[in-house]
Amino acid sequence: MKERIQAEAERLFWKYGVRSVTMEDIAKELGISKKTIYQHFTDKEQILYQVMLDKMVKNQSEMECMAIQTDNPVEEILHVLTVMQKQADKVSPNLLIDIKRYYPQAFTLFRQYKEQRIIQSILENIQKGVAQGLYRPDINPVIMARLRVEQIELAFNSDIFPTDQYSMLEIQHELTHHFVRGMLTEKGFINYNHYVNHHKYDNNEYQADDTDLAAQSAE
Amino acid sequence: MKERIQAEAERLFWKYGVRSVTMEDIAKELGISKKTIYQHFTDKEQILYQVMLDKMVKNQSEMECMAIQTDNPVEEILHVLTVMQKQADKVSPNLLIDIKRYYPQAFTLFRQYKEQRIIQSILENIQKGVAQGLYRPDINPVIMARLRVEQIELAFNSDIFPTDQYSMLEIQHELTHHFVRGMLTEKGFINYNHYVNHHKYDNNEYQADDTDLAAQSAE
Repeated sequence: MKERIQAEAERLFWKYGVRSVTMEDIAKELGISKKTIYQHFTDKEQILYQVMLDKMVKNQSEMECMAIQTDNPVEEILHVLTVMQKQADKVSPNLLIDIKRYYPQAFTLFRQYKEQRIIQSILENIQKGVAQGLYRPDINPVIMARLRVEQIELAFNSDIFPTDQYSMLEIQHELTHHFVRGMLTEKGFINYNHYVNHHKYDNNEYQADDTDLAAQSAE
Repeated sequence: MKERIQAEAERLFWKYGVRSVTMEDIAKELGISKKTIYQHFTDKEQILYQVMLDKMVKNQSEMECMAIQTDNPVEEILHVLTVMQKQADKVSPNLLIDIKRYYPQAFTLFRQYKEQRIIQSILENIQKGVAQGLYRPDINPVIMARLRVEQIELAFNSDIFPTDQYSMLEIQHELTHHFVRGMLTEKGFINYNHYVNHHKYDNNEYQADDTDLAAQSAE
């Protein structure tokens, strides 16, 4: 039952954010009583905490898997966008905003994850890219990894990117491509253009970009 | 007298930050009494506010001047680094940190300036770069300008870039070059490499980078 509650809470949090989802809502969706939920969790934040913890472990495994499957750091970093695109209709822009504002324990968990795991994955990606001659040898990998991890949070900041003006996906697309391009060597650009052209039909939404990139690589 | 007080306060704030400089210190440096200062300013924050206001007006003129002097957006954006380099030994890393933490009125002023003026200058730079074919036509100039203006603040955040590990100049150099490169077209790269090679002897501190860039452009 604990797993079912968690799975349903995750679905609702991702769809509507955390604040507007009540224990009542979760119980109703599962056809159980609130009392049953309270047998497993003390409050909503505890469910959220557990959901995030499991999600992070899963994400970490996926990232490690991805790093093993492809030996190409450019592909690896851009692949994140494809994953996001697939999940995009499931994730409410309120999710991280709610967590940041109203659920300090869960936000601390996210912060720790960001500090310890995400930044480490990015750093390894950058070091691999430099070693393979795809990223410039003159970048400072630690500063770049830090910049990238801050950008992830930036995209979720609705004061900076109002959710009624931009879609999360549009911002992530823009920031991720800009981040990668800023590090590329000439050899890296060949790789990058190859990946982008190869994936142009995956992302109809960004057809305009991809056409331009294709044109550029054909020059 | 008001101007002299402001000028001396500016020099001390830039050198030591705001918090550690007292009204006593300013009076002492000028060989006047604290009472004389209080005839012109109610408190330290008021001096700071006035110093920042004047500085912003001056900076704005300099930026506009620079945009008129050079019609090249790549040069324009990189020139900021040269200006920073010249001022670097005069600016304490504590300055913006102090302002952000302890002087809310002055920080609001900085925020407003950032929102209204800096972002506008960057946006114009990006639009000019796209129009000249130096920056990619597929970037979203508004998202990019927003990213850049947030990076400026990021570089001053000592939680993210501890001042004992990085110099402000190193971070600004890294972020600025990465920001520009991420937007460049092939034509833009020719321009960029030309500028970097031309200025390599200005920046002995970053000789390593410049050598690499020179090598790249010679390929």
